[in-house]
Amino acid sequence: MKIGIIGGTGDIGQGLALRISDKHEIILGSREPAKAIESAKNIVNLLKEHGVESNCRGTTNDEAVKEADIVVISLPFQHVKSTLAGINPEFFKNKIVISPVNPMIRTDTCFLYNPPEEGSAALAIKKMLPESAKLVTAFNNIAARKWAMLDVVLDYTVAVTSDDQEAKKEVMLLVAQISKLQPVDAGSLDVACIVESLTPLTINIAQNNKLKDLSIYMK
Amino acid sequence: MKIGIIGGTGDIGQGLALRISDKHEIILGSREPAKAIESAKNIVNLLKEHGVESNCRGTTNDEAVKEADIVVISLPFQHVKSTLAGINPEFFKNKIVISPVNPMIRTDTCFLYNPPEEGSAALAIKKMLPESAKLVTAFNNIAARKWAMLDVVLDYTVAVTSDDQEAKKEVMLLVAQISKLQPVDAGSLDVACIVESLTPLTINIAQNNKLKDLSIYMK
Repeated sequence: MKIGIIGGTGDIGQGLALRISDKHEIILGSREPAKAIESAKNIVNLLKEHGVESNCRGTTNDEAVKEADIVVISLPFQHVKSTLAGINPEFFKNKIVISPVNPMIRTDTCFLYNPPEEGSAALAIKKMLPESAKLVTAFNNIAARKWAMLDVVLDYTVAVTSDDQEAKKEVMLLVAQISKLQPVDAGSLDVACIVESLTPLTINIAQNNKLKDLSIYMK
Repeated sequence: MKIGIIGGTGDIGQGLALRISDKHEIILGSREPAKAIESAKNIVNLLKEHGVESNCRGTTNDEAVKEADIVVISLPFQHVKSTLAGINPEFFKNKIVISPVNPMIRTDTCFLYNPPEEGSAALAIKKMLPESAKLVTAFNNIAARKWAMLDVVLDYTVAVTSDDQEAKKEVMLLVAQISKLQPVDAGSLDVACIVESLTPLTINIAQNNKLKDLSIYMK
């Protein structure tokens, strides 16, 4: 499968490239394609050192979406609208689009969940895409830095939401291929707000309790 | 310590009685004190069978609050206001009050978080209490039925929030005495909404994935 990543030099883009570019073709997109190309090379080399053959390359966001079977939006929420506006909407048609995006703001003491008026990043992003695109939320609650620690097993629960049951199932299968992640069907996009809000909570808890890179495991 | 439980015949009340009435005096309150008395007797007898000496008794909600050092509100959100209105507010003064309350509604397909206009049950309950009462949220995300399964180790993360640092610390110490629960400082009452909303999420995930009694563990 070809997985195109918008903002591919961000945490999730890099993480997916490191964790599943041996199983799937990862296309890192960027507003600065030279950066994405450089980043892809580094990943291929790093994985080579670990004896893993990686299928990963860098290009523009536009190309990454055009060539992909599944698109992942690896951007801070405040950059999503302007970035998507620069990509040909035709390229999204009928494709699964994964949002791991968590809108939040930092106050003096903590992070707060800060959803747009639609109620969640997911519902806002859905409105920005062609109607035939199938939006799915996943990977929202995995601590950014853990993606990159290749020796760290990702033994976490990934709550997946979508209004499209087939797309949700397909993303759950993809999630299950990464380390020890356990995908769960968390329902429709209506509850994506809860999943998104968990990330500022775990960041605050890590900070308040001198813990690091907390993620969620349900049992 | 004396822990008074409003709605003591509910899940959390019963759970706390079963899990820490060997260490603390548990006073189960109820609108129907005969039920609370009966329930306390059952707990004492059950624990006796397990070789545990239990300090647990039943009474009215009013008495449970009056005698307590720490009060726990073990009620569905929709019953909190009317129940608190029947209790002498003097009895709450300067006391720690724990809210494990999660306001939610059931739709045809799932549970949704349904906070009052204050933003969370915690913030609404704070307004119902005298100003000197110290509201702390805790125990929000432990699956109700697991409390009662005495052979089940509760190896979960308990996110604790409060605007009173000392009260929060005291509740965290209490949480740490129960099974293998791990209290964490999750911040102020401003973020209680996130903690409360986690419970409809875990209920939905359990239901959608044929899992049971899911709770949260952060790692």
